[in-house]
Amino acid sequence: MSAAATSLDKSPLSTRAIAEAAKAASRVLAPLDEAARNAALEAMAKALEAAGAELLDSNEEDCSADSCAEGESLAPAMLARLKLDGAKLREMVEQVRSVAALPDPLGRGLDAIELDEGLDLTKVSVPLGVLAVIFEARPDAVTQIAALAIKSGNAVILKPGKEVERTAKVLVRVLREALAAQGLPADAVSLVVGRERAQELLGMHGLVDMVIPRGSKALVEYVQANTRIPVLGHAEGVCHIYVDKSADEELALRVIEDAKTDYPAACNAVETVLVHREIAAEFLPKLAERLRAKGVALHGDATVRDLLRGVEVEAVDDWHTEYGEMALSLGVVGSMDAAMEHIHAHGSSHTESILTEDTAAAERFLREVDAAGVFHNASTRFADGFRYGFGAEVGISTSKFHARGPVGLEGLTTYKYVLRGHGQVAGDYRASNKPGTSKPGEQARTFTHKRVAR
Amino acid sequence: MSAAATSLDKSPLSTRAIAEAAKAASRVLAPLDEAARNAALEAMAKALEAAGAELLDSNEEDCSADSCAEGESLAPAMLARLKLDGAKLREMVEQVRSVAALPDPLGRGLDAIELDEGLDLTKVSVPLGVLAVIFEARPDAVTQIAALAIKSGNAVILKPGKEVERTAKVLVRVLREALAAQGLPADAVSLVVGRERAQELLGMHGLVDMVIPRGSKALVEYVQANTRIPVLGHAEGVCHIYVDKSADEELALRVIEDAKTDYPAACNAVETVLVHREIAAEFLPKLAERLRAKGVALHGDATVRDLLRGVEVEAVDDWHTEYGEMALSLGVVGSMDAAMEHIHAHGSSHTESILTEDTAAAERFLREVDAAGVFHNASTRFADGFRYGFGAEVGISTSKFHARGPVGLEGLTTYKYVLRGHGQVAGDYRASNKPGTSKPGEQARTFTHKRVAR
Repeated sequence: MSAAATSLDKSPLSTRAIAEAAKAASRVLAPLDEAARNAALEAMAKALEAAGAELLDSNEEDCSADSCAEGESLAPAMLARLKLDGAKLREMVEQVRSVAALPDPLGRGLDAIELDEGLDLTKVSVPLGVLAVIFEARPDAVTQIAALAIKSGNAVILKPGKEVERTAKVLVRVLREALAAQGLPADAVSLVVGRERAQELLGMHGLVDMVIPRGSKALVEYVQANTRIPVLGHAEGVCHIYVDKSADEELALRVIEDAKTDYPAACNAVETVLVHREIAAEFLPKLAERLRAKGVALHGDATVRDLLRGVEVEAVDDWHTEYGEMALSLGVVGSMDAAMEHIHAHGSSHTESILTEDTAAAERFLREVDAAGVFHNASTRFADGFRYGFGAEVGISTSKFHARGPVGLEGLTTYKYVLRGHGQVAGDYRASNKPGTSKPGEQARTFTHKRVAR
Repeated sequence: MSAAATSLDKSPLSTRAIAEAAKAASRVLAPLDEAARNAALEAMAKALEAAGAELLDSNEEDCSADSCAEGESLAPAMLARLKLDGAKLREMVEQVRSVAALPDPLGRGLDAIELDEGLDLTKVSVPLGVLAVIFEARPDAVTQIAALAIKSGNAVILKPGKEVERTAKVLVRVLREALAAQGLPADAVSLVVGRERAQELLGMHGLVDMVIPRGSKALVEYVQANTRIPVLGHAEGVCHIYVDKSADEELALRVIEDAKTDYPAACNAVETVLVHREIAAEFLPKLAERLRAKGVALHGDATVRDLLRGVEVEAVDDWHTEYGEMALSLGVVGSMDAAMEHIHAHGSSHTESILTEDTAAAERFLREVDAAGVFHNASTRFADGFRYGFGAEVGISTSKFHARGPVGLEGLTTYKYVLRGHGQVAGDYRASNKPGTSKPGEQARTFTHKRVAR
């Protein structure tokens, strides 16, 4: 643990005690109605506005502090993410209010079945319980995550990166005071700092219901490998675009340019473009010209390098590379089947797109490719909770469990089955209770299993 | 590994090769239409019928074999589960056909959103991929699980208990031949035997998408602790019934008797009954009489033992005990809040029931209790996939992830997002592309985000 973390971490409570308090708080939050949860969010927004000066001061300390024991200073990109100013603070407050305005994710009737007359089953969305969020340098992560948690009736324990600890401590204190002033448990939002605490938190299965790592691939992989708690997130996004022999050339150039250059650091940016052999000789030079003009470094297989002689194209090191920058792998394939095989072998099941005017080929690709998102004639960059219309994005999942693809507030919920009866017992429905068998005079009942319109 | 397992396991393929072949088979199964999957199930049923004599022979060998190296013979209960006869075989065949008759779990449109004109997002149910099922002595588990897997477009790798290895090998061979005769990959159904293979299978994340342990609590806990693959199942069911002060006495006696005695070994049988203090003195003696008459051994807290003087009531050792037999813990609580606190402290989030005529109290219990099933005036024994009307039960989950409570075929599916466009790119929708900014002359498009009726 760093010296900075130790000095900041004056909490007398053990990590277990914090998790237990969060669990208890979650039991209070879960049954609150939507109005009460939205009122809490508005109180949080107001409290953040009121605490502006103190927040900017604590952030100034974070920004000027040496980030680690060796006295190194922060990288410019991290400093930009860390830095708070008036405009960013107003944006954070606005974000809390926009979460309040989202549709209620709780109490939704997901299914309703009449098992028998007077025996009614419903499936209702409920909160998960306690979320643990491990993030890096962004102060806005604190307010966004806390807002999403309260909106969905969950308690949350936040573990910030050490660079943002001072700001996070003030933010969490302000949010806790706002909750308490609403008569709600402050422990609905808690903070732990330091690497040791993070490790302890990952061991709290039974108390913590979901871990959300937000940050680098290394952070996500560390979390996935070190906890039995379900993890929502993804370590990588190696997205592909397959340019079919029947692709519209101009459409393909435009979509690939967007998918690579719109925001190359995003997980939904394209990393590999596979081109059908029949059109490769004509298409690749145009694509190379377009991308080189934008400053994209090209990597290619032997055929690509052959077709692009005269253009600077490095060999592809590893088809599984997520560049996350202005660089792209290019390959030539003999068929759509070969493209799908390549995608299944090297992709991360994030988002895969086919560009073609051949609808039958497109439909086969959409059906057969196994990924969270399968697109036809559209940029991979659309794989995003806001663009999908979810209103908020909790994360993007490349797991097939619980939630897949961009995850909205729904991903912070589970469900329970509610059965309302009038004293029915299972024995009434046994075939052996038919007249003349074990319980003479009683008729065995049969289930009606009528699905009720929602 | 036992000697028996070694001698049976003549497969030249490594566990990884088997898992890779299953993954490849799953890619063929996934896009099959419903008719093709149902035809495969019918072929499986017919092949089982044709192989009757061979199956009974191999089962006879299993039943007469010593179950372990020390030469112990099988316990009668296990022998009953293991034993095949003509009637049980016909039932197994019937079960395969009834799975074929279930509604298709694949290709369901779970959501549909128009992102913009000509840019349509749908959320569609798809198979998980490869299931690994680790089970104990039941031959019928092989056919039931294989049928559920094929119906839901998944490949499955079966690891049987050593007692049933001979029967399982014949069953799987017959099913593989039936699949191959339909032009489908035999590797959609595979078998591995032996403890070492099971351990290897649990390490195959990336190839195996879900593990389903079917058997004892020890088996489930072992699997949960030894794999990074998501596990569907539950280790325990400590179900509670809370008898409120406003309970109907006769209804309560009848429901508790059913919940305890209908099938005490089931995970949805009640283990603890909590009685409100105001009615305890009158209700407990009647309940004790009713349950003692059925042969239920009673355990109680100090108040219960005091109120039931003269009745044989042992002290409760541990409120977390799942008896799984004709035994029950009894406690007295001062309020519904105390009952809910007890349930949250000692329950396993399986199924919890309140018995009361007070609807407001019932609704509060249903809202506030955190469990897969929350019941009012009904026996906990209704927590079951068939009784819920799912047609089949894959298992019961006490996890909050992916699936909770009884799990039907839906639990063997995930979803993918399918986006159909006409060359749209994310850059078109940026605010910074408004006229007068970075791309003069181009209008920034806005998403319509129209939810389309399903």
